[in-house]
Amino acid sequence: MKSADFASRLADVAKTVDGVLMKLFADEALPGEILRPQRVVESMRYAALAGGKRLRPFLVIETARLFGKDGEGVLRTAAAIECVHCYSLVHDDLPAMDNDDLRRGQPTTHKKYDEATAILAGDALLTVAFDILADEPTSPDAATRIALVKSLARASGLGGMVGGQLLDLEAEGRFADGTPLPLTDTQILRLQSMKTGALLFAGVEMGAIIGGASAAEHEALGRYGRALGVAFQIADDLLDEESDAATMGKATGKDAAMGKGTLVRLWGKEAARKRLGELVEEAESALAGFGDKADVLREAARFVANRDR
Amino acid sequence: MKSADFASRLADVAKTVDGVLMKLFADEALPGEILRPQRVVESMRYAALAGGKRLRPFLVIETARLFGKDGEGVLRTAAAIECVHCYSLVHDDLPAMDNDDLRRGQPTTHKKYDEATAILAGDALLTVAFDILADEPTSPDAATRIALVKSLARASGLGGMVGGQLLDLEAEGRFADGTPLPLTDTQILRLQSMKTGALLFAGVEMGAIIGGASAAEHEALGRYGRALGVAFQIADDLLDEESDAATMGKATGKDAAMGKGTLVRLWGKEAARKRLGELVEEAESALAGFGDKADVLREAARFVANRDR
Repeated sequence: MKSADFASRLADVAKTVDGVLMKLFADEALPGEILRPQRVVESMRYAALAGGKRLRPFLVIETARLFGKDGEGVLRTAAAIECVHCYSLVHDDLPAMDNDDLRRGQPTTHKKYDEATAILAGDALLTVAFDILADEPTSPDAATRIALVKSLARASGLGGMVGGQLLDLEAEGRFADGTPLPLTDTQILRLQSMKTGALLFAGVEMGAIIGGASAAEHEALGRYGRALGVAFQIADDLLDEESDAATMGKATGKDAAMGKGTLVRLWGKEAARKRLGELVEEAESALAGFGDKADVLREAARFVANRDR
Repeated sequence: MKSADFASRLADVAKTVDGVLMKLFADEALPGEILRPQRVVESMRYAALAGGKRLRPFLVIETARLFGKDGEGVLRTAAAIECVHCYSLVHDDLPAMDNDDLRRGQPTTHKKYDEATAILAGDALLTVAFDILADEPTSPDAATRIALVKSLARASGLGGMVGGQLLDLEAEGRFADGTPLPLTDTQILRLQSMKTGALLFAGVEMGAIIGGASAAEHEALGRYGRALGVAFQIADDLLDEESDAATMGKATGKDAAMGKGTLVRLWGKEAARKRLGELVEEAESALAGFGDKADVLREAARFVANRDR
């Protein structure tokens, strides 16, 4: 698959996912809800519909497609993981956390609204993710829905994404004297596998769940998802060193500015790029059993490694 | 059932739920988790194990007992709803929200740790609630587990608890000029049914789900849960007017101090107490079909209405 075709496919998915999210964030309350306050719905829309590559939904959708699965259930699953991703951005941007004013070139949610609204919008996005997965239209099969809930909860909780964000703040010395802790590359890889890798992995895993993958297929896709996650973060570190705020739509060079250890700084850029190449190969070879059908996922790994934003 | 017996039963449940939570917040990572950072686990324990009546877990446990159900699945369900309750307290106490320094007579989580840790501890508590419900030991039946997830998510999200907290801040004029908005009693009742009522209702509903209630039983227990929720909040408003910080273990008189509308202020104390009595009767009569078995739940309604803290 050509990278121009891939880019247009990614853009198509982003547009589709936006439409699904808009419908899910309707003004009307669902059965069992009492009322959806306007400010909550609007801030959720602001936080979740301000662009973004929609990479996690893309992984859900393209993994499910390996098994010939598409339609409403797959799209709802894709939307649910994006809700978790977006909540994590809203909370991470808060003044008490990373204190970022810009996200995708726009004011962060607490800048656009206020901190209280941003905290609650994040809480609501996290909660609605599980509501979406638990609701019948996601799959007629309760076992499939509960497997999706478990996959998403475990990837995003204390032993995954939330834990990773805490380790990241700890690495910055935020709970001590503010001096960054010297982490080894093993520690950095683990931190990143929690903070970013776990949710990318979950995108692939949830696609495999809703696709009805066998145990062997789950295992192969798991190897793909893990390699992709590490590649994503190394590419992110390279971008943080090399890009500027105008391209990224958010602050860059922050890691270097605070003297924080990254793989790129430990290994050097050349070695980091070499490792990135190996990871793309690992990701591609994990997909060997799926033949041509998996070309989009192969291209996704290359995209993740070589993206410029 | 005598109220002394009830008090000791409530205390027993609280102790049992503490034990379940301690096990769930173990240091060891579960399969699919990468690592549980010490600071996350400790702050979760701090936030969730600092006492509390454990009323929501009690409702789960005693409702399930109506159907002869007890054991690990019921206790895990009880622990899950308490995780959501505790997360909401941690986030509501944050400086950007209610800015409270004390909770149950102890420093709030952001005072004990810091704001970033408190935000993440709350996020982790919310996420782990769904992990607990989704995991096999909660019930061998996937349909039961997914019904629990849906009940909890819908009660605690944008159209329930989170939405209610936002409406509460809005009622304080927090998103405008700081002048409290004059709410009607209908508006106050709705706000409270979201902020507090929805999760109490969910405690009863989740007990009914794991107990295997029929549609008619669900309906009757729903009426009980709703009446209990309203009674809880009127009692809370009365306590806020009449009690002091030493008894409550948290700041009191805040509503009056900021000129905020409450049912007690709109109706007067006497009318509020009268309505409380009617709600207890409503709650009790909803249980008519369950006979003596439901005496604990009847006593729970009286306890909620007459508690002194």
